[in-house]
Amino acid sequence: MGGTPPLSPLAPAAFPDLPVIKGVEFATAAAGVKYAGRTDVLLVRLAEGTAVAGVFTRSATRSAPVLDCQQKIGGEDTGAAAIVVNSGNANAFTGRNGVAATRNVTTAAAQALGIEENRVFTSSTGVIGEPLPSDRITAKMGELASGLSPDTIADAAKAIMTTDTYPKGASAEVQIDGQTVKIAGIAKGSGMIAPDMATMLVYIFTDAAIDREVLQSMVSANADLTFNCITVDSDTSTSDTLLCAATGASGVRVTERNTGFIDALRGVMLDLAHQVVRDGEGATKFVQIHVSGAKSDADARTHAMSIANSPLVKTAIAGEDANWGRIVMAVGKSGAAADRDQLSIWFGEELVADKGWRAPGYSEEACAAHMKGESIDIRVDLGLGGGTATVWTCDLTHGYISINADYRS
Amino acid sequence: MGGTPPLSPLAPAAFPDLPVIKGVEFATAAAGVKYAGRTDVLLVRLAEGTAVAGVFTRSATRSAPVLDCQQKIGGEDTGAAAIVVNSGNANAFTGRNGVAATRNVTTAAAQALGIEENRVFTSSTGVIGEPLPSDRITAKMGELASGLSPDTIADAAKAIMTTDTYPKGASAEVQIDGQTVKIAGIAKGSGMIAPDMATMLVYIFTDAAIDREVLQSMVSANADLTFNCITVDSDTSTSDTLLCAATGASGVRVTERNTGFIDALRGVMLDLAHQVVRDGEGATKFVQIHVSGAKSDADARTHAMSIANSPLVKTAIAGEDANWGRIVMAVGKSGAAADRDQLSIWFGEELVADKGWRAPGYSEEACAAHMKGESIDIRVDLGLGGGTATVWTCDLTHGYISINADYRS
Repeated sequence: MGGTPPLSPLAPAAFPDLPVIKGVEFATAAAGVKYAGRTDVLLVRLAEGTAVAGVFTRSATRSAPVLDCQQKIGGEDTGAAAIVVNSGNANAFTGRNGVAATRNVTTAAAQALGIEENRVFTSSTGVIGEPLPSDRITAKMGELASGLSPDTIADAAKAIMTTDTYPKGASAEVQIDGQTVKIAGIAKGSGMIAPDMATMLVYIFTDAAIDREVLQSMVSANADLTFNCITVDSDTSTSDTLLCAATGASGVRVTERNTGFIDALRGVMLDLAHQVVRDGEGATKFVQIHVSGAKSDADARTHAMSIANSPLVKTAIAGEDANWGRIVMAVGKSGAAADRDQLSIWFGEELVADKGWRAPGYSEEACAAHMKGESIDIRVDLGLGGGTATVWTCDLTHGYISINADYRS
Repeated sequence: MGGTPPLSPLAPAAFPDLPVIKGVEFATAAAGVKYAGRTDVLLVRLAEGTAVAGVFTRSATRSAPVLDCQQKIGGEDTGAAAIVVNSGNANAFTGRNGVAATRNVTTAAAQALGIEENRVFTSSTGVIGEPLPSDRITAKMGELASGLSPDTIADAAKAIMTTDTYPKGASAEVQIDGQTVKIAGIAKGSGMIAPDMATMLVYIFTDAAIDREVLQSMVSANADLTFNCITVDSDTSTSDTLLCAATGASGVRVTERNTGFIDALRGVMLDLAHQVVRDGEGATKFVQIHVSGAKSDADARTHAMSIANSPLVKTAIAGEDANWGRIVMAVGKSGAAADRDQLSIWFGEELVADKGWRAPGYSEEACAAHMKGESIDIRVDLGLGGGTATVWTCDLTHGYISINADYRS
């Protein structure tokens, strides 16, 4: 990797103050997997009986740790559990060697913590196709196990970063029958971000007591409205992993009827998803694209993603150019139903195209003012039906090229 | 549009010497549609009885001239015909006004040449969504009609340019029964290039005598192997148009059995298609991607296009980085069938990944040497079946961002 890229201009002012989640402990270490002079391994210990749910990349070339997690998710939630994450090497496209490397890590973590190996979940993120030096990770396992602490989630968020320019965290509290349950999550990701699912590592913890199947369905449904609605560059990682762990340590039981909890969980997920977009490689603008009037929600999503992934749309936004012709182009090429003469487009509050024709009242000045802002809202109405979708992306700038034209060297 | 971009480093040494095609005459004029100080309108007169075939964008938001051409193609090939092309304004997403503007141009050309209006084909290329000042074009029609000449095809290639950094031409001669037929073509296009079809304007002329239906099937089949196999940025224009005119002036009849002619025509089309890629906005590398061993040709094409359109692959090539992990990623995300453990990848002659694992003998040096060249060959074998596809693209560089972040202003 080249020099550290500068902090994204869209970064939050500071890492948020995340609550301690009872039943979750963190430790980080500098194992030198690839990076020097920084932490690159995270160990998370989850209390006995923690329910773990997961959502993973759909890539046909997914990594060894992803395949291992997918095999384990859904197993019995007895005993303590653990998550081990390393940055710097994705352990992807590493064949049998990669399976063995993942096994080394899970075995070492299970031994160090005295837990079952099938309760150890791992993620690896970084370069693809290089053998993972798992011995560097296992050599640190004793140090990690003895350094576990409930209040170092901020360090955890840093250890999992690759090209991220800032650590990402979000939290929520929900009142249920007069009692409080807490949710805290961390994420990494800034390039190779696209559904399904948005390319990232995401770990969310709650002290609520939730059955694993219920937790899984909450997480899956919420992922479709959050992480699966963001894109930076249309590229999908081989390593995308979201794990959500419910320790039950609050003693408060949550079921599928607790919509307040589901909404709060989605809020945390959306916050983290937006933070990933805001750290999109080279991003200078945060872009929301809302499509309405499509024949179906699926069509609306196809149009929205076609707009969000169009290099011409993204470079126009980088240039602060309200070039709605490129929106028309992206709708036209998406493959979903569209009628040129029913199509309307807004930049911010400004109607720029009205049913297939440049809007008569359209103020170039108002548009230009909106485009100069940090947050860009693009709205498209197809005038065909009731389908809607909202997706989020960033612009495509020189920064993206600089970061990605020299990653491996 | 900003300042003129510098000549593509992949440009040919010179515009080729194209043969005169009997029955075809050209005239160009500076109408000031948008650009100042250059020609921007082309009139082509085609002799009586010329057969005209066409292939067009499949965009759902295609332009008024494209819709007009599509209506006319397939009509009777009696009388003389004409092609009128303007650069600077695409007359796309211009509603009824756009239909009227196209009508103005076709009416003026028909009158100036004394031909039927349904034999006048037009194309417009440039900015989308702005009204086409068709009066500026019609004002030049008399000058154009009186300035027609058979040997100014090079001027024609220049008049149709937008962000192109060089005019594009190609030709071939075929011997049929001891007689010679000639083919000459011109093209424009450098951004918004993707199938279906590759975003461009292409005009090909031959003095062969060919039935319109036969010509159409030759052109359509050849387009699938040439213009529909190139991509610069995955974006599809609303204006893509390929017209192929056979004047018959050589007196040599060509039928579907003349494979020599079909091959020569495909050669001209492939040459022009490659020239478009070589003029890809910001391109510094010409990239051929060949996929074999796929379950079907369609799957091979899906993988090849996923690689060719991946921003991470394209930026790695820009950085002269043999980052085959990104090829794995692009195969994984394409949606077509792939088995990680059967996948092999070559850069140039160098096998870098062998059945799901880094190739043991892999020489970083040999790879690096290949990546420094101007032409990059990437070969992927899926090990699943007999499907193959070859596509062509270019790298993604700072130049692309510079050109497209400031196009309209």
